[in-house]
Amino acid sequence: MSEFSHISEQNEVSMVDVSEKQPTKRQAIARVKVILPEEIAKRLREDGFRTPKGPIFEIARIAGIMAAKKTGELIPLCHPIGLDHADVKMTLEKNEVIIICSSSVFAKTGIEMEAMTGASIAALTIYDMCKALSHDIRITDLELLMKTGGKSDYRKEAS
Amino acid sequence: MSEFSHISEQNEVSMVDVSEKQPTKRQAIARVKVILPEEIAKRLREDGFRTPKGPIFEIARIAGIMAAKKTGELIPLCHPIGLDHADVKMTLEKNEVIIICSSSVFAKTGIEMEAMTGASIAALTIYDMCKALSHDIRITDLELLMKTGGKSDYRKEAS
Amino acid sequence: MSEFSHISEQNEVSMVDVSEKQPTKRQAIARVKVILPEEIAKRLREDGFRTPKGPIFEIARIAGIMAAKKTGELIPLCHPIGLDHADVKMTLEKNEVIIICSSSVFAKTGIEMEAMTGASIAALTIYDMCKALSHDIRITDLELLMKTGGKSDYRKEAS
Amino acid sequence: MSEFSHISEQNEVSMVDVSEKQPTKRQAIARVKVILPEEIAKRLREDGFRTPKGPIFEIARIAGIMAAKKTGELIPLCHPIGLDHADVKMTLEKNEVIIICSSSVFAKTGIEMEAMTGASIAALTIYDMCKALSHDIRITDLELLMKTGGKSDYRKEAS
Amino acid sequence: MSEFSHISEQNEVSMVDVSEKQPTKRQAIARVKVILPEEIAKRLREDGFRTPKGPIFEIARIAGIMAAKKTGELIPLCHPIGLDHADVKMTLEKNEVIIICSSSVFAKTGIEMEAMTGASIAALTIYDMCKALSHDIRITDLELLMKTGGKSDYRKEAS
Amino acid sequence: MSEFSHISEQNEVSMVDVSEKQPTKRQAIARVKVILPEEIAKRLREDGFRTPKGPIFEIARIAGIMAAKKTGELIPLCHPIGLDHADVKMTLEKNEVIIICSSSVFAKTGIEMEAMTGASIAALTIYDMCKALSHDIRITDLELLMKTGGKSDYRKEAS
Repeated sequence: MSEFSHISEQNEVSMVDVSEKQPTKRQAIARVKVILPEEIAKRLREDGFRTPKGPIFEIARIAGIMAAKKTGELIPLCHPIGLDHADVKMTLEKNEVIIICSSSVFAKTGIEMEAMTGASIAALTIYDMCKALSHDIRITDLELLMKTGGKSDYRKEAS
Repeated sequence: MSEFSHISEQNEVSMVDVSEKQPTKRQAIARVKVILPEEIAKRLREDGFRTPKGPIFEIARIAGIMAAKKTGELIPLCHPIGLDHADVKMTLEKNEVIIICSSSVFAKTGIEMEAMTGASIAALTIYDMCKALSHDIRITDLELLMKTGGKSDYRKEAS
Repeated sequence: MSEFSHISEQNEVSMVDVSEKQPTKRQAIARVKVILPEEIAKRLREDGFRTPKGPIFEIARIAGIMAAKKTGELIPLCHPIGLDHADVKMTLEKNEVIIICSSSVFAKTGIEMEAMTGASIAALTIYDMCKALSHDIRITDLELLMKTGGKSDYRKEAS
Repeated sequence: MSEFSHISEQNEVSMVDVSEKQPTKRQAIARVKVILPEEIAKRLREDGFRTPKGPIFEIARIAGIMAAKKTGELIPLCHPIGLDHADVKMTLEKNEVIIICSSSVFAKTGIEMEAMTGASIAALTIYDMCKALSHDIRITDLELLMKTGGKSDYRKEAS
Repeated sequence: MSEFSHISEQNEVSMVDVSEKQPTKRQAIARVKVILPEEIAKRLREDGFRTPKGPIFEIARIAGIMAAKKTGELIPLCHPIGLDHADVKMTLEKNEVIIICSSSVFAKTGIEMEAMTGASIAALTIYDMCKALSHDIRITDLELLMKTGGKSDYRKEAS
Repeated sequence: MSEFSHISEQNEVSMVDVSEKQPTKRQAIARVKVILPEEIAKRLREDGFRTPKGPIFEIARIAGIMAAKKTGELIPLCHPIGLDHADVKMTLEKNEVIIICSSSVFAKTGIEMEAMTGASIAALTIYDMCKALSHDIRITDLELLMKTGGKSDYRKEAS
């Protein structure tokens, strides 16, 4: 293996072999932001979509959870693993929707990509539902906040 | 319909009815950036992955094209449409991978979400293939650059 | 062809050949009922899930719309067609959730199965979200209410 | 958690966290009926489709098994689990097709929805293959008959 | 474009742009053979699976038709197109199962890969159902027999 | 059970019940050949696509790995299992592309069909990318080379 997992020394791609690994409990949290024009953010608030029950956030949450389940189908070299848990939380801070996707599994590999994928598709769903008002929407700062249970833990440093 | 497409006046969600619309040729281009740590960007260059034939970029390109085809399955209220064309281009500028996804279709609705989804999954695939080296990777500034063929054209202003 | 479409005179199955048909605007509406135990219906009301914004109904609506898009993948001999429109409406009457799924398309075949499938999966989603309280839930009376645009129109007689 | 699983106290949806549960052998059986017009039932018998090898029943059986495998993809908050077994049995009694779907798995959660989904899609497939003869077909009385292996067993009382 | 479609002069892959093409009626037929050990072929005959109603052939036929619908999802650079028709025919000649998959569509591109994919998955399904008896099974000679409706017609020469 | 797994004594199909089996480490290797016209093989070499980094082989490799993950969705009675590893290797020998797909999993059943499916879709992908030059391409001799970890091991005899 070269230093890039998935690429062998012959420069050929493959799914990393995890057959000799022991399964462990794995958790990951990813975050992404959707930057809305002032006007859309304002209407989201006025129309009452700021609450956790608002349809836009609800639909985006479900889209994110469903996409987390599809990670192994979307990312070519991801292993197909199950999911013990997934959720997507959202808050509207000024004109930014902050999306946090958490996921966990008991498996030999994973769980970062599931959290990252869930967050991404939740963000795209918000975009889809607001784009009739404006296309000046930016999806930004998708990052892994935390990961435990693999070879080494990871925690993003506060910036 | 409220001002948010997909949400009726009764606050119920639905797929927007496009049955009375005429199909037109539609095109869209989306862009996203993957910010890598210096070290990973350096190795990408040294290992020869800077060329269009390098496996990481190749795999991400294919993942993006395949995801663009799955847009209607991932985004809950997107219409399932075909695709006449999709491509994903990438360049490594300093420590940033710039990803451009273009797509077009002859249909009654669409094509922004296909370009946005293709760009997102291409970026996530790069993340997946570099994450063994570092998790300090950020996917950022996903935006629509251009869209033609719908009710009104859109072109992102230079920033 | 025998009288059962999809079955040839040699008793072999196939997807019906629609290549010589002209596309038309097609619409269909299906209805299904979910019979809940009194107790669950009562809590649904008390917890405020009776409104269109309530999470259970919202999630079931989205599941139904997404499933309608997957009809061609689920029903072996259905043609893969697009969808111009799909929605799912729900009301709680006493202890019955009445689900109405409407769909339309401009195509050579279809649209009943899309409406029927959307209604079914919406009902199953309600089941899934209530089953922790009781398994005494019955999904019943799934029927096509109306269909227009094909060889002959259909309208279910009032019973 | 509120009393509805999947809904947190903040009224937010999520996939129930099963990470601390131990896997057990789980089994479930669901039943649904397809009520056909006399005429279709008669032809099904005359044309020899009453046997287990008849194409209509065969196709519906396969559709049901394949759909049971897709449950986690169709029902938004279902966990993606494997399947150790699934089958679909059918009998034609007078003008009713009785469909029984059984499924089992060794997992931390599940298996009711797999049996319910398999039964539903098998019924819809029969509808699809008979609808050229008549749309007066009703899919009804979808219920869980039995479930073992979870927190508590369930067995539907004879009605 | 280089002479390989899908590969640009910069050696980058993309889905071929068909936006300027006119849709035409397109048809294709593919054939593949499954070579069985004498013993399995004999049992297939004795057990009565030689008829069109036999379960093994029936299941393989359905698998092939369903796979033809998924071609755009499986072959990375195939366009997602609909299908106007698909069928799979099988005959057992001595110890060879001959599988013929036909498909047609009215579209701007396609239909060879749909026929080829349907034939392949039908063959794999036969393999799957016979492999408990022996693994000495060979799937061979998958070829396109005919194609009409595109830039140029094709008809395989008799060999 | 009749001697054909998947077929019960009543001639009904079902997914084989593996609930009482213990999981084991399972590995399988399948091989398939793509016979190209001299001219295409020559251009593949000249254009530099003979190396492991060449786009055609790269895309086919990824398509094969992604398809191996979808096996349970494509083959009607295959169990949905995970994958611990999958890779696809290719060499161009004269005018034949030799494709070897290996896969492994720790599970109660499987892994032949995953290797066979991965090899098939990789071959179809090569076909798709070369077919603009010629349709005289044959995909042939798909066989299982090796399988370990199940009830009995298998190793294809040298021919």
